[in-house]
Amino acid sequence: MDVWGDCLTIEKWQHFVAETLESGNSTPVFNINPNDTREFDAIFLGGGAAGRFGAAYLRALGGRVLILDRWPFLGGSCPHQACVPHHLFSDCAAQLMLERTFSGKLWFQNLNDKIVSIKDIVELFRTGRTGPHAVMNFQSKEQLGLEFVLNAEFEIIDAHTVQVGDRKFHVKNLVLALGAKPFVPDIPGATLKGVFTSQTLVENLDFEPGNTIVVIGGGKSAIEYGCFFNATGRRTIVVARNQVMPMLKDAESRAYAILMMEEQGMEFFENAEVMEIQGDAQGKVRSVSIKTSDGIIDIDTDFVFMGLGEQANSEIIAQKLGLETSDKGFIKVNRHMQTSVPHVYAVGDVTGPPMEMFKARKEGVCAAKNIMGQASEYKTADYPDFMHTHYEACWLGLSEEEARQRYANVKIMKLPPDNPNGLDVGLPAGDRMMLYLMAKPRMSGFQKLILDGDTRKILGATHIGYGAKDGFQYLNYLVKKGLTIDDLADMDELFISPSYFIQLCRLRAGDPHFNDM
Amino acid sequence: MDVWGDCLTIEKWQHFVAETLESGNSTPVFNINPNDTREFDAIFLGGGAAGRFGAAYLRALGGRVLILDRWPFLGGSCPHQACVPHHLFSDCAAQLMLERTFSGKLWFQNLNDKIVSIKDIVELFRTGRTGPHAVMNFQSKEQLGLEFVLNAEFEIIDAHTVQVGDRKFHVKNLVLALGAKPFVPDIPGATLKGVFTSQTLVENLDFEPGNTIVVIGGGKSAIEYGCFFNATGRRTIVVARNQVMPMLKDAESRAYAILMMEEQGMEFFENAEVMEIQGDAQGKVRSVSIKTSDGIIDIDTDFVFMGLGEQANSEIIAQKLGLETSDKGFIKVNRHMQTSVPHVYAVGDVTGPPMEMFKARKEGVCAAKNIMGQASEYKTADYPDFMHTHYEACWLGLSEEEARQRYANVKIMKLPPDNPNGLDVGLPAGDRMMLYLMAKPRMSGFQKLILDGDTRKILGATHIGYGAKDGFQYLNYLVKKGLTIDDLADMDELFISPSYFIQLCRLRAGDPHFNDM
Repeated sequence: MDVWGDCLTIEKWQHFVAETLESGNSTPVFNINPNDTREFDAIFLGGGAAGRFGAAYLRALGGRVLILDRWPFLGGSCPHQACVPHHLFSDCAAQLMLERTFSGKLWFQNLNDKIVSIKDIVELFRTGRTGPHAVMNFQSKEQLGLEFVLNAEFEIIDAHTVQVGDRKFHVKNLVLALGAKPFVPDIPGATLKGVFTSQTLVENLDFEPGNTIVVIGGGKSAIEYGCFFNATGRRTIVVARNQVMPMLKDAESRAYAILMMEEQGMEFFENAEVMEIQGDAQGKVRSVSIKTSDGIIDIDTDFVFMGLGEQANSEIIAQKLGLETSDKGFIKVNRHMQTSVPHVYAVGDVTGPPMEMFKARKEGVCAAKNIMGQASEYKTADYPDFMHTHYEACWLGLSEEEARQRYANVKIMKLPPDNPNGLDVGLPAGDRMMLYLMAKPRMSGFQKLILDGDTRKILGATHIGYGAKDGFQYLNYLVKKGLTIDDLADMDELFISPSYFIQLCRLRAGDPHFNDM
Repeated sequence: MDVWGDCLTIEKWQHFVAETLESGNSTPVFNINPNDTREFDAIFLGGGAAGRFGAAYLRALGGRVLILDRWPFLGGSCPHQACVPHHLFSDCAAQLMLERTFSGKLWFQNLNDKIVSIKDIVELFRTGRTGPHAVMNFQSKEQLGLEFVLNAEFEIIDAHTVQVGDRKFHVKNLVLALGAKPFVPDIPGATLKGVFTSQTLVENLDFEPGNTIVVIGGGKSAIEYGCFFNATGRRTIVVARNQVMPMLKDAESRAYAILMMEEQGMEFFENAEVMEIQGDAQGKVRSVSIKTSDGIIDIDTDFVFMGLGEQANSEIIAQKLGLETSDKGFIKVNRHMQTSVPHVYAVGDVTGPPMEMFKARKEGVCAAKNIMGQASEYKTADYPDFMHTHYEACWLGLSEEEARQRYANVKIMKLPPDNPNGLDVGLPAGDRMMLYLMAKPRMSGFQKLILDGDTRKILGATHIGYGAKDGFQYLNYLVKKGLTIDDLADMDELFISPSYFIQLCRLRAGDPHFNDM
């Protein structure tokens, strides 16, 4: 199928993607300009975050670029199996927590002891995901003018040749943007029916999970999906080899996040390990054995979720090209995104953590620049971060503990303030938090700004609540440029702003030796 | 009652405020340091946004300051009658729109044709508002060390003397931070029972409104409260003398916001006027006569909401001190916040629009600086703005139309993209938007970045959705400093970020002559 020159509407793309996924039709879609006689400066293998952004940037720089992807859409695993379903599930978790908190009050229905269907939500996602797929195909083709082959099984012949069907593409550079997939550990029973990762959950779930769910892992994916399962009304047991939520380093913020999860009924085993998943005669999960500091515990369940990080989609190709990989299988690259083989670059999740959108996209851009002769280096540093519990948790810069190790005169501004009533006080507030503020103030969030009292600079910030995620992107950029309490005090807040940083700073900024707040 | 030296917990304050409001007890609460023999540098009359922030700043600068407030709490009308109830009602509107959209689907209850109690939500607010009040009293006393008299009827003797009961306070400067209250026009029937402003709604509502509500006004308050009434399931008719939502100048963004309201069933009369509110024999609202371009229409209703802006709480004091006021009654000040009378300043809503939190607080700070000898000027300019519909609408900088008038090479980046399917496509997405994205994509928001293709600078931005309000504060600060497409492309986005500005810019930034997106 050749689509160059046809303007495919978003609607047409949506039908095409839906049908192709449904039918398993393996006909590639070629969108290649027959009138452009230039050799490709690069082929991006994989059109996900790293590949699509890298290709767009390379074309913007004036180069010629081709994307090959095995899926019938561009955008990669994010809209298909990763960020988008995660956000849908986290939205459901937030919504369900609210409905459960107000169950039977005001206009809210009674959800007490009611279990909500996970399968229905997964099926909604499977139907709905073709919408974003279609937009990205439209944007890539009509707005960005990208050339691509979708729904394509490709074979790498060598570092300058890739084959799709009977068509061979010669190219100056290869960029491997192959992505990653959830890691499944070698636990007995890991392949039983009823064991899921974030990927297989949305692809394979075909039964309604029972009342108990075991989540393996303590990191982002484990907690994000665990909170969703919990919010559906199921007993949810999180088994973490070490700590839960270790990435949120500010101890007080982390404690608030965990306390709120516990108050929703989440159960945590830290420093624990799943020994075995037992199956029944039909090969379905029946129970899980967990080794805890108090001995081995058996939990009856038909649903186990593995949230244990990612492994690279690199094996065959790395071997074929003779690329150096890390002991975990990630493709090694230098700061120019070059692999150990000349003219072969790698970008995105396939090069290893952090498995974040900005990192994948910026690595794609970095490779594009280098290929086009603009010497460029990239390495993640000082980036903002977030994850979902039932809330959005955001953080940037240093934790209070890290700040106190490095600075002599650390100042803290936070809400709620330290006080004898702890969390049961009516601030902070913000959009999506107002019902909690009025009736259940301990649930209305926690936020903290960490400052250096000497230079007056912001050192770090955390926010557990809603509506600050977007702001943390811009705030982080400002903090890296040396933002001070005085700069913040001078901004114009949009009140009630989810983060209270501007106003808290303004209350103190007049003082050359300002105190905590 | 004298509380200096007692540490009052937030809990104690909450009980005190609740009891005082309930009982109408008029005993003032004195929190004045008996050991400080200095004369007050200033008395702030009114401890709302302007007064409390001004006083805190003045004290931070080393001055001595006293706040007098007639209410038993600091913080002013915002937490008591204005921003906080508005945010509660807007949160309910967003929540109810979601529940109605998914009525009977997934776990959602069937809300079709069901009317939700406004009175219950108002009562929840009346109980809950003492929480924020208590935090602000605690913060002001224990953290900021402010001196104040609450629950105080005060009399101004002259520009240097104020009296509370039998105590006279001598002071170098007076700062009038008296606030404003909703304007009620002189329409026949405006004093009938059933006619409310944002203020009287939360104070006086004692019946459940019927099925039809008439909202007078087309500005922020009218639309914000109107969307809430609509979301409760009532027919809601907005009567605007001119345009609806004129402050959102970007035509395309405004059209999206209005379309979404119309799809929720809101009815708008623009260029229309309420002629008369008719009452029944008991003095309750019975119907409203509206003059439209098609003639006069009568609407049966028992509930009319006036959302027509604010008038200053200035009359008596302005007269007493002989202050110059505007024809609308706002106290005239220069850029130092000085009134026409020496040593008398005015700050906040009492000086006129914009009635925004940052403006009130920064005027308070400006007065404090000048009083303490730090020459300071303040005038609002280039501030970000927002309002609620069922969504959060944010904007900053120029609209597309304004930009095209001033710049020759305007570029636009937006979501959803222009395309033959209009809004029925699956992007943007973001927190709180995921269910819409999956099942009702036209409801998942609209956003737009306006750029100068020559200098590459951001000229403006708009966002109709959720979760971008906090970010617009920081983004506006950056835009005023000359933020470019290249700066944005270099930031680290927290994906799925409610605003897509970083990633849209990155897709284009490589091109010296980038196109629309």
